[in-house]
Amino acid sequence: MGYKFLKKSIKVNNAIDLILKHLTIKLGIEKIQFDESLGRVLAEDIISKVDIPPVNKSAFDGYAVKGIDLISASRYSPLRLKVIDEVKIGEMPPKWTKGALKIATGAALPDGLDTVIPAEYVNILGDNEIEILKSFPIGDNVIQRVEDVKKGKCVLKEGRIINPFDLGMLAQLKKMNVMVLEKLRIVILPTGSELIEPNKEGDLYKTVDTNMYTLSALCKKPWIEVDHIKPVQDDLKALTQAIRSSMVNNHVLIITGGTSVGELDLVPEAVQRVGSVKLLIRGIGIQPGRPTGVAIVDSKLFFMLSGFPTACIIGYIALVRPLLYKIINTPEPPKPIVTAKLQSKVTSSLGVEGYVRVIVKKVGEKLIAEPVRVIGSSSISSLIEANGFLIVPYGSEGFDSGSEVQINLYDSIQD
Amino acid sequence: MGYKFLKKSIKVNNAIDLILKHLTIKLGIEKIQFDESLGRVLAEDIISKVDIPPVNKSAFDGYAVKGIDLISASRYSPLRLKVIDEVKIGEMPPKWTKGALKIATGAALPDGLDTVIPAEYVNILGDNEIEILKSFPIGDNVIQRVEDVKKGKCVLKEGRIINPFDLGMLAQLKKMNVMVLEKLRIVILPTGSELIEPNKEGDLYKTVDTNMYTLSALCKKPWIEVDHIKPVQDDLKALTQAIRSSMVNNHVLIITGGTSVGELDLVPEAVQRVGSVKLLIRGIGIQPGRPTGVAIVDSKLFFMLSGFPTACIIGYIALVRPLLYKIINTPEPPKPIVTAKLQSKVTSSLGVEGYVRVIVKKVGEKLIAEPVRVIGSSSISSLIEANGFLIVPYGSEGFDSGSEVQINLYDSIQD
Repeated sequence: MGYKFLKKSIKVNNAIDLILKHLTIKLGIEKIQFDESLGRVLAEDIISKVDIPPVNKSAFDGYAVKGIDLISASRYSPLRLKVIDEVKIGEMPPKWTKGALKIATGAALPDGLDTVIPAEYVNILGDNEIEILKSFPIGDNVIQRVEDVKKGKCVLKEGRIINPFDLGMLAQLKKMNVMVLEKLRIVILPTGSELIEPNKEGDLYKTVDTNMYTLSALCKKPWIEVDHIKPVQDDLKALTQAIRSSMVNNHVLIITGGTSVGELDLVPEAVQRVGSVKLLIRGIGIQPGRPTGVAIVDSKLFFMLSGFPTACIIGYIALVRPLLYKIINTPEPPKPIVTAKLQSKVTSSLGVEGYVRVIVKKVGEKLIAEPVRVIGSSSISSLIEANGFLIVPYGSEGFDSGSEVQINLYDSIQD
Repeated sequence: MGYKFLKKSIKVNNAIDLILKHLTIKLGIEKIQFDESLGRVLAEDIISKVDIPPVNKSAFDGYAVKGIDLISASRYSPLRLKVIDEVKIGEMPPKWTKGALKIATGAALPDGLDTVIPAEYVNILGDNEIEILKSFPIGDNVIQRVEDVKKGKCVLKEGRIINPFDLGMLAQLKKMNVMVLEKLRIVILPTGSELIEPNKEGDLYKTVDTNMYTLSALCKKPWIEVDHIKPVQDDLKALTQAIRSSMVNNHVLIITGGTSVGELDLVPEAVQRVGSVKLLIRGIGIQPGRPTGVAIVDSKLFFMLSGFPTACIIGYIALVRPLLYKIINTPEPPKPIVTAKLQSKVTSSLGVEGYVRVIVKKVGEKLIAEPVRVIGSSSISSLIEANGFLIVPYGSEGFDSGSEVQINLYDSIQD
């Protein structure tokens, strides 16, 4: 049993398309309080049941007047008006019959008045009289009834990740509960007999598992519930048992380690034992991260990532993350991409997308990108030192020093 | 009492510089578990106490050999070696005297062996003999001891916001506890007699407060603890009391509403009553959001933002957020900025930075930006409809249709 990785790896985009064809994860829907919905996936269209605003309102502190009276007002022919009453914010306006009303920002205009003159354009003459020295368009400085949202309008569409502005809209509509997708449940299973947890003593030949921490952190989003188990030894029975029990309550399993060609690579064997397996991907065209496998087992999505920390992380970024957004059917948030001048030659193999770690720095007004010296794919220090990825495309062997290249930034630009 | 907003507003950058000169917030330091430190501000340099990796390791499944023996190996003159023993991952390698050792990915090389031949390049002859058909450089396929981190190296610098990769490094160094800045404590105080909470009934003249939800969500970061109180009525005593009690446990107060020129604008008056006030900013050059004030009161930082939802949010984005990062002395994370072709003329006043809400769409391979029709600054529907800001600079009156403009994206590009 087991499988060999193919010599010619599949392109990432093709891998994603292939997996999507077989994917059957269907998230349920749950009702939660709106003020706990930030970052969750909206599972209903939100239709306004009211007009917003429901009344005409003043945009400034000043005086509400009848606009037509103002048409010929000027310094030479000022309009004088009696201030009859006052409109307070949050209160019903008094009935208007003549003259002007003093009005606060946000207060409602009564029937008959359609224009607001900001206080700074008004002379107060005493005896409750004001003088206006210039004309204003009819309707000026008034927030018109319904100008923002008409009753019946769909203000938030199903499928949206709820952002801070959306929360404000839900509050405004008094939508106290909201339907959202249940959380996507992911579990991370680090495997390898060499692995120990960081709080355990080990000799020089043991390695602290870092993948469960980095992957958990990368998965940490309001629409994901991520869990991890302790490192599993390279033992078929233990591995099979760990995978089987992790499947019960999760949609996605991310297994790290145990997927290359060695005899100890028991993951493919264990996966075969837990259910009906569709092995979709055996190696993808990314570097580091080639030994990445994907299978669907009884409708659960299995990612088998390299055990090497950097290869594992890049497998996640290049393949897993885009697929997680596909599962919730929502575009990925926009990524910061900058153009920078490459400071030294970068080479990559043909037939893989090379994830080159670079440091982007600002020099004067220009950005430069310095590749981080990297040897293996075993360590994450290159990711920490760098602040971005230069992705060398599938069909390219690299970039010359001095090239203008696009960098995916994941950390702030250095000075 | 109270203050009028200045006609000529201060530029945002000048406002930030001015505030920084007077800022005295000093965050304490606390020790937390490393696996709860994601997104917190590191408050110590992390120095490695070990070499990583501590031993030479194999990068592949294959055979560990003495590189010098391989120098003239070829198809015509293959090197034959006895496989004496095996190195298992996570275990101390057997002592080597002669021949080759079978080795697993990540397993340690014993003294004397320096090169690994991946299994796919080896012919197995039987009788524990292998044949190697080509030469390999000495040291090939070996992860060298200390190649990643040398003992004594500073791997993570104080002041950094801890990211997923950093977590992995902390695990690797067995740094179970880590010193971080205490959380910056922010409280949001919505003010205005017209305001109600979304679960309360109100007539047409009441307004649901949305600012506490949008601002809380915008402030939601692992290094911030954000709280809000219920809307406070326009009553000097109530306001003074609310501000005074909010100051006790917080570093930053964000007060919304009550800062324009009306008689009901009691916030400045209330602020005067709670402590020793340095009023630094009275109006800043952003549109919407001009009526934004900043004061320092007994070492606490007070932001007084417009009560109008959009003006409030843009005041936060343009002024408050950059200052929060200044307080923790950490650069803001990189922002997604794209260049797009403007689809219609955009105008803005001289003397303000105009935050124009635009929809960025992909048309073929090009990006276009359509300004959202906006009337007032009272509603957040323009922010929901848009996915980015076109910021018209302080000294500009706008952009012509067809201009190539830079857009700050906050949501994904539309198709």
